[in-house]
Amino acid sequence: MRQSLVLHPDRLFPSDQTQRAIARELYGGVKDLPIVSPHGHTDPNWFAENTPFPDPAELMIKPDHYVFRMLYSQGMRLEDLGLQPVKKTDRHVETNPREVWRRFAENYHLFRGTPSQLWHDWVYKELFDLDERLGAENADYYYDAISENLSTPQFRPRALMDSLNIEVIATTEGALDPLQAHATLKSLDWGKRVITTFRPDSVIDPEFEGFSENLKKLGEITDCDTNTYDGYLDALAIRRQIFKAHGATATDHGHPTARTKVLSKTDAADLYERVRAQPSSESDAELFRAHMLVEMARMSLDDGLIMQLHPGSYRNHNQPLFEMFGRDKGADIPMQTGFVEQLKPLLNAFGSEPNFTVIVFTLDETAYSRELAPLAGHYPALRLGPPWWFHDSPEGMRRFREQVTETAGFYNTAGFNDDTRAFLSIPGRHDVARRMDCAYLARLVAEHRLSLDEANELAEDLSYNLAKRAYRL
Amino acid sequence: MRQSLVLHPDRLFPSDQTQRAIARELYGGVKDLPIVSPHGHTDPNWFAENTPFPDPAELMIKPDHYVFRMLYSQGMRLEDLGLQPVKKTDRHVETNPREVWRRFAENYHLFRGTPSQLWHDWVYKELFDLDERLGAENADYYYDAISENLSTPQFRPRALMDSLNIEVIATTEGALDPLQAHATLKSLDWGKRVITTFRPDSVIDPEFEGFSENLKKLGEITDCDTNTYDGYLDALAIRRQIFKAHGATATDHGHPTARTKVLSKTDAADLYERVRAQPSSESDAELFRAHMLVEMARMSLDDGLIMQLHPGSYRNHNQPLFEMFGRDKGADIPMQTGFVEQLKPLLNAFGSEPNFTVIVFTLDETAYSRELAPLAGHYPALRLGPPWWFHDSPEGMRRFREQVTETAGFYNTAGFNDDTRAFLSIPGRHDVARRMDCAYLARLVAEHRLSLDEANELAEDLSYNLAKRAYRL
Amino acid sequence: MRQSLVLHPDRLFPSDQTQRAIARELYGGVKDLPIVSPHGHTDPNWFAENTPFPDPAELMIKPDHYVFRMLYSQGMRLEDLGLQPVKKTDRHVETNPREVWRRFAENYHLFRGTPSQLWHDWVYKELFDLDERLGAENADYYYDAISENLSTPQFRPRALMDSLNIEVIATTEGALDPLQAHATLKSLDWGKRVITTFRPDSVIDPEFEGFSENLKKLGEITDCDTNTYDGYLDALAIRRQIFKAHGATATDHGHPTARTKVLSKTDAADLYERVRAQPSSESDAELFRAHMLVEMARMSLDDGLIMQLHPGSYRNHNQPLFEMFGRDKGADIPMQTGFVEQLKPLLNAFGSEPNFTVIVFTLDETAYSRELAPLAGHYPALRLGPPWWFHDSPEGMRRFREQVTETAGFYNTAGFNDDTRAFLSIPGRHDVARRMDCAYLARLVAEHRLSLDEANELAEDLSYNLAKRAYRL
Repeated sequence: MRQSLVLHPDRLFPSDQTQRAIARELYGGVKDLPIVSPHGHTDPNWFAENTPFPDPAELMIKPDHYVFRMLYSQGMRLEDLGLQPVKKTDRHVETNPREVWRRFAENYHLFRGTPSQLWHDWVYKELFDLDERLGAENADYYYDAISENLSTPQFRPRALMDSLNIEVIATTEGALDPLQAHATLKSLDWGKRVITTFRPDSVIDPEFEGFSENLKKLGEITDCDTNTYDGYLDALAIRRQIFKAHGATATDHGHPTARTKVLSKTDAADLYERVRAQPSSESDAELFRAHMLVEMARMSLDDGLIMQLHPGSYRNHNQPLFEMFGRDKGADIPMQTGFVEQLKPLLNAFGSEPNFTVIVFTLDETAYSRELAPLAGHYPALRLGPPWWFHDSPEGMRRFREQVTETAGFYNTAGFNDDTRAFLSIPGRHDVARRMDCAYLARLVAEHRLSLDEANELAEDLSYNLAKRAYRL
Repeated sequence: MRQSLVLHPDRLFPSDQTQRAIARELYGGVKDLPIVSPHGHTDPNWFAENTPFPDPAELMIKPDHYVFRMLYSQGMRLEDLGLQPVKKTDRHVETNPREVWRRFAENYHLFRGTPSQLWHDWVYKELFDLDERLGAENADYYYDAISENLSTPQFRPRALMDSLNIEVIATTEGALDPLQAHATLKSLDWGKRVITTFRPDSVIDPEFEGFSENLKKLGEITDCDTNTYDGYLDALAIRRQIFKAHGATATDHGHPTARTKVLSKTDAADLYERVRAQPSSESDAELFRAHMLVEMARMSLDDGLIMQLHPGSYRNHNQPLFEMFGRDKGADIPMQTGFVEQLKPLLNAFGSEPNFTVIVFTLDETAYSRELAPLAGHYPALRLGPPWWFHDSPEGMRRFREQVTETAGFYNTAGFNDDTRAFLSIPGRHDVARRMDCAYLARLVAEHRLSLDEANELAEDLSYNLAKRAYRL
Repeated sequence: MRQSLVLHPDRLFPSDQTQRAIARELYGGVKDLPIVSPHGHTDPNWFAENTPFPDPAELMIKPDHYVFRMLYSQGMRLEDLGLQPVKKTDRHVETNPREVWRRFAENYHLFRGTPSQLWHDWVYKELFDLDERLGAENADYYYDAISENLSTPQFRPRALMDSLNIEVIATTEGALDPLQAHATLKSLDWGKRVITTFRPDSVIDPEFEGFSENLKKLGEITDCDTNTYDGYLDALAIRRQIFKAHGATATDHGHPTARTKVLSKTDAADLYERVRAQPSSESDAELFRAHMLVEMARMSLDDGLIMQLHPGSYRNHNQPLFEMFGRDKGADIPMQTGFVEQLKPLLNAFGSEPNFTVIVFTLDETAYSRELAPLAGHYPALRLGPPWWFHDSPEGMRRFREQVTETAGFYNTAGFNDDTRAFLSIPGRHDVARRMDCAYLARLVAEHRLSLDEANELAEDLSYNLAKRAYRL
């Protein structure tokens, strides 16, 4: 039996009538605010080239590790979802996107209770005007409807930026990226709406694939001698300037831990020598990453780029899958992550500097009330990023506010990030965040812990102002 | 003043009228489903022999560590509750079960807000039709009423299996258990309703009491030479077959940690030599347990037994009490438990095998959203067991669903286990689980995060289908 | 626009009508119970001397690290809030309390959603009858109104003890404190209302500033030879007696970890020799603290003082700020804290002693359901202190009850502590706790998990009886 697809106007609001009425009012004040998306993984070429998106599977399944990891967890093979192995294999790889879409549709019930369903349903209904819930029986109908839309001018990337009400979006590029797409965008005078972010993991993390080679390239493209530590630092400073010239207001760092360390110039130079001679020891690699976070902060004081830390992911946990399919295949697993001793060197050095901002994210929710809120409730430079990755969900957002607010307040948080490469779902993701923030505020108002005028002001701050302020947009 | 004992039909449902109405509807669809109890600690002799249960204290207090640990925590001595020391002592041990019952009744208020009260009240009202709340003033009335019932044919174990609506129940036996009760049940053609589970801790954990002796016995009963590693593995495989022949569909492993490790045949054989020479070092013991989990998984690929891991309990924390009274006296305390690095070897080896299932439990709730849901949301072989032991409670169940579902969905969980030796309370325990699952689903429906038809289907899956499927029943 | 300041009679109660009605009823039964404040940091001189409190900034901002750390986190400098550096500096220090007050008032919105706002608003409305919300525009009006009140006889400390309905309050003094204020209070026959607490960190923790010097003073004031371990123990026992004579019923221990250790007399004496020879090694310092907790417990068996453990704070995380301004400047950050192995030696030695009580607090909420509730639900001597410091807030209190009650019940908890030096806010803090406990109980009643008569009894126990019993008041 086909079921209708409805996006209820009160979805995600508490069912308690008092709270719901307040949530509705608060949400009414923020739902149409422009979207500020200061951290994410969309492809800048989409906007530079403005070509149509390909088929539904290529757009909505194959790049979305939330989606294919769930299908994999229930026994589906990645080849059958059209993912191309990086290793030579005899196994059949599905090349028909319609087949891939059908497999997804048949298993859409697996996403019940997950944010993926919320995001997908938002796209289906709001963008493609589909009014039946996706399932095996209407897979082809969906496929055709979406395909047809994707071929229209309204679904070109730049047109979508307007219709999706996105004021500004930050992409993320590696330190060695030529930034051609962003150069094109700049020449189109679009550089203020699609900006880059400086992500130097590949030249800072000695355990990154091809680290030595990356250092060489870094030297070449900056005309610096990265065989010396001084040359290496110069090269990084130059790349930061170039990213800044392409709109970047921020850097981003995806280290396994949050460890930071202040080394003397001599010790740092010695360490650089050791880690250049690959392979480096695990402890040297960790020490170098720790030291370089402090160096990055130091450069931020100069160039004003704000700093983002995304620590705590155990990458490529499924080794056989990694060997067959490569990175980002849904097998990155959160780890226990400590921030107290780890961030102390950085925060002691620069945490009270008026012109420095570091935005910290976590995959370990236990740090919210124990470590991050107390740290953010003290250090002027520290802001807390929104719930990240696995926690970017209604309950995850609720836990974040409940565990952070009482110690750090609202104003030590940094608004919402969608952190996605799923472009079409961006407004749906911000909508979930705005609704959940309004739901949280509504409870505070209903329990007489906050006045309605304060809540209205906060709703706008959380939906829009705090992100702009924290990212200096 | 005597208070009436009422089991309100809406108990455990949210008081919000919208949610309550939905919960009531969902629960109506599942409350009469047969009970599937795939993991627990009832005594198979009860069913094999079908003799009446003894007195109320022997049935409901002395075997229930939830009950006597709470009384102990408020200053009562275990001797005064009729527990027999294993060490010689001069202290008076209460032998009158009526006295024990009175002490319990006088202190029944200590269980306010705990699941023990929910479970006990369910038994008192539903099975014994008692309509006053238990207290000092009606202890004897309770004692007499329960005693009287226990002597009737309707309260014989096999009759109760029918009246309690239990379709199938798994007991847990050590690897050396002769399985006589299960053999009897098989001969009675009852072997499909009361099945065993293979629990090999005593012959796999070098720190288990009498490990060397246990290995010897293992050799004797299987006619294998457990002086060699090959003989040892053969013996385990044989015992698994015998358990399977007595209905087992699963193994169960109660290790201190979740650590797993793949060793080469030679290293494993060397290690086996070392741990046989008791006492083994702590690190050898841990390594051997880690390795043997992988070996057990390998055997599961052959014989199809699903695997259960119950890690993270610090056993016998109260050493003086352990010396006086022995194991399982309410002093087992949860520990921090990591799963990411620990399960990697096992999951890398077999986590994507289509015919393998490992069900993981935790006493460390911080692992739900951080480690277990992400792992289960990726690896095809991994399913999450229900909230375990201290967390087998309304709030514990709520936290489980809220912290697991958004990442792992519902279909990577394995239904409910009662995990109890308190036979009479089994339906009451499943009733709490069904009500809490319906309450959770009702909130999702009321907040328009799930449709009612999906919730109805899920309610049945969580109450019945998922357990049957995960345990291959 | 000026907003009115209203303390809604139903504040902090659930907005669900069923729950709210029950919460209101429960709260009605406890709101006027006298306040028992068994742990806190008010100054005994206030009560001994009974002089008026100084200006509003001195009373409500400068001593409150919750307040100034939040202002600091948003870029305000501590000098600008009137905090006096301990280090010589050229930077201007604000000496005008009215200026300090204005800065606070302008930034009062930072406290939205934090308990500080609840506590402050309570004081403003209930004690000073202010009916506008504090903000930039009415800072002077506030300042004048509060100042005026502070000069009246009704606002003298001893008068406030009556009008604030405080039955008894415990202050906290270091082991070397001369206890003059308490001696005065004793002579005034006020010694039963303002009692001391024995806090020996400065003579037990080898890493405490001036440890060697402190041991010398300890010897002098007790006439014991603290050059020997025996003399040291005698000196501590004597000080405990003196504190007891000044009303103390408890000791308090603020160690970095919860580690305890039983050492032989000889080993302890050797260790004492080593740690006396400052600086001691980190491991010796930790071992000595661990051992001395066991010794303190042993002394408690003799003198009947109950023991409080407050572990897990990383003190003075902001090193530059510490050097400039000293201790207690809002930069103490919670750390992961383990209790299972750590408390085992202490609990194995004395945890089942009928006359011993140890009340444990935590800044690491993950320990509630995993470690502390199971330990408290077993050991007769162990009671759980209320949510502490960062968690002394509506959501923190809710998490405490939800995560502790199902395993430990209500009767293994120790009532509420305000733990504050902000004297005027004490009733407001107890009011938050009473409301949140009533809200929690109301949910249990509304969900038919508890009867109303039980909830009424519990509300009184949680608000009043449990604290008196646990602290032997």
